[in-house]
Amino acid sequence: MYGKCKNNRKGATTLKTKSIKAFGTEAAKAPLKGLTINRRHTTSHDVEIDILYCGVCHSDLHTARNEWHGTIYPCVPGHEIVGRIVRVGDHVSKFKVGDVAAVGCLVDSCRECQYCQEDLEQYCEKGNIQTYNSPDKYLGTQTYGGYSESIVVDESFVLRVPENLDLAATAPLLCAGITTYSPLKHWNVGPGKKVGVVGLGGLGHMGVKIAKAMGAEVIVFTTSASKVEDAKRLGADDVVLSKDEAQMAKYAGKLHFVLDAVSAQHDINAYLNLLRVDGSLALVGAPELPLPVAAFSLIPFRRSFAGSMIGGIAETQEMLDFCGKHNIVSDIEMINIGQINEAYERLLKGDVKYRFVIDMASLKK
Amino acid sequence: MYGKCKNNRKGATTLKTKSIKAFGTEAAKAPLKGLTINRRHTTSHDVEIDILYCGVCHSDLHTARNEWHGTIYPCVPGHEIVGRIVRVGDHVSKFKVGDVAAVGCLVDSCRECQYCQEDLEQYCEKGNIQTYNSPDKYLGTQTYGGYSESIVVDESFVLRVPENLDLAATAPLLCAGITTYSPLKHWNVGPGKKVGVVGLGGLGHMGVKIAKAMGAEVIVFTTSASKVEDAKRLGADDVVLSKDEAQMAKYAGKLHFVLDAVSAQHDINAYLNLLRVDGSLALVGAPELPLPVAAFSLIPFRRSFAGSMIGGIAETQEMLDFCGKHNIVSDIEMINIGQINEAYERLLKGDVKYRFVIDMASLKK
Repeated sequence: MYGKCKNNRKGATTLKTKSIKAFGTEAAKAPLKGLTINRRHTTSHDVEIDILYCGVCHSDLHTARNEWHGTIYPCVPGHEIVGRIVRVGDHVSKFKVGDVAAVGCLVDSCRECQYCQEDLEQYCEKGNIQTYNSPDKYLGTQTYGGYSESIVVDESFVLRVPENLDLAATAPLLCAGITTYSPLKHWNVGPGKKVGVVGLGGLGHMGVKIAKAMGAEVIVFTTSASKVEDAKRLGADDVVLSKDEAQMAKYAGKLHFVLDAVSAQHDINAYLNLLRVDGSLALVGAPELPLPVAAFSLIPFRRSFAGSMIGGIAETQEMLDFCGKHNIVSDIEMINIGQINEAYERLLKGDVKYRFVIDMASLKK
Repeated sequence: MYGKCKNNRKGATTLKTKSIKAFGTEAAKAPLKGLTINRRHTTSHDVEIDILYCGVCHSDLHTARNEWHGTIYPCVPGHEIVGRIVRVGDHVSKFKVGDVAAVGCLVDSCRECQYCQEDLEQYCEKGNIQTYNSPDKYLGTQTYGGYSESIVVDESFVLRVPENLDLAATAPLLCAGITTYSPLKHWNVGPGKKVGVVGLGGLGHMGVKIAKAMGAEVIVFTTSASKVEDAKRLGADDVVLSKDEAQMAKYAGKLHFVLDAVSAQHDINAYLNLLRVDGSLALVGAPELPLPVAAFSLIPFRRSFAGSMIGGIAETQEMLDFCGKHNIVSDIEMINIGQINEAYERLLKGDVKYRFVIDMASLKK
């Protein structure tokens, strides 16, 4: 997920804390290493989660290296968290000790603004509190993410995990899953709709699985001939090599929706031109430089070039339940915490099918 | 309006024609001058309209000078046409001789594709037939527009004009009016909505009047301090000088919709950032070069950067009826046909408040 927290809550109080092991970095150019951080004791609405698995999102790397600026060090990334509840506060009602639970990109928001009231905490007007690198109102530090032994979170921001899903492969649903589910849902993807998915990486491969489960016809656009077979295995009805103009022309003006999961610079007009009248392209990747958009890519068919950011808590639960019903998880490669720096390098090369997940037991050894 | 016709209908038959006076150009760099063109005799569903007034749209200039390429010469521009019906075909049912009638940017479409069936003839899959510079299936030439004595059009593409409106000032509604009405309607502008209008020219001034009549709070964004008072006279609730960052910041994240009527290059991100969650900016001006769009202008608030092109025939009638009900017309400066070349030069400087309209009686002298 993206963005910097604009929230600067005052009044952090002194709470009892405990020291735990974590993995993070103290500078943009330093590798990640073992750190010790504090977690608050559970307050009345909190649960404490012993972390079993944590997915590795490209945002973790961007933040660790201060590529989006605003990183506060030490930084402990990780917002695709699955674990088991080991303690609950007095007023916790959704969970009990022993439950499997998950935490995604958000751990709090103002809960009062118009967007929070509409279950759109990701767009909280006062600035949501993200799982890492946001102000921690309890301890006065920044928040620390899931590359750690445990995490303490208000139950309102904790998700239930369907029992039938593999827990390690569920972790990436908390960011890659909701980041693709939310726009597919928002733009009414379903039966009778032709949907393009651009870029087959951590986000894109979830987009294919979810759009297919929603009942849409899914066309994957990729620059890599080597990904064609894999795209079909994941559920794509057709795969287009985006460098082949004739293949692209086949879908000109035909798609109801395009999910664009590419973070590198790319020609957005080529994909806008695939949209039907009133079609939308939603960007969920975040290219560093602005993308040039031609007026005539939008005007002739009343097309929209949109963006979308993760999802609210209610929608994240809905996504997990949907994935439980359709037996959808991420394709993952499990690593130990000691492999995280190497994993970041491989992530930069796109060398992962399709998401690294850290077995957090490796941190405790 | 924009775009080149993709329709290449075959089978033009030989119809009786009559020669009429027109004003147009035979080359991109030649001034407009008197020409003689042919109009078909009315066929069974046609009406013949004696043209009283024709508005001058920037598209006329672009096409006359081949700036969008694809202009076929001789070119007779004009698609903001108001006149009186002087002949009707055998099967005409909507009109009778003596009626006031109007013709906008379209004179035909395939009438069969999904978009035509949905009253979106402007987005006809086979290519709509525009009032000028499109293939004329009757005569085998290109279509000739409203800088002429008369025009013959199938009644399905002819509009009724509310009796209470000034006829000359009604002409610009046929392009500038529908180009702004359609997106304002499509994106649900109305009471309780804050709407930005960027650029106060031929399109923008209609956008202000129509959005205000729809019940919205209207904020005009302009680079010219000299336009502030005029924007308020036209109905704006507030006017922002777009070069003033503090004034711009006042509306950051506050607008439900922005109508962008600027054809020059401009920083689209500054306006996208004014949108609320799920807000849309619709471009109706057509800058020549692509506009750079930052991913973070769209992603954090699920914003959309859209485009919109004129409107369908049913919606154009709806717009005229709406303008009749709310007594809305264009602010115009009347010219004679002999002043058209000078008017084009003034148009390039933005020196018109806010639309030139040709008194077509001047062509007949």
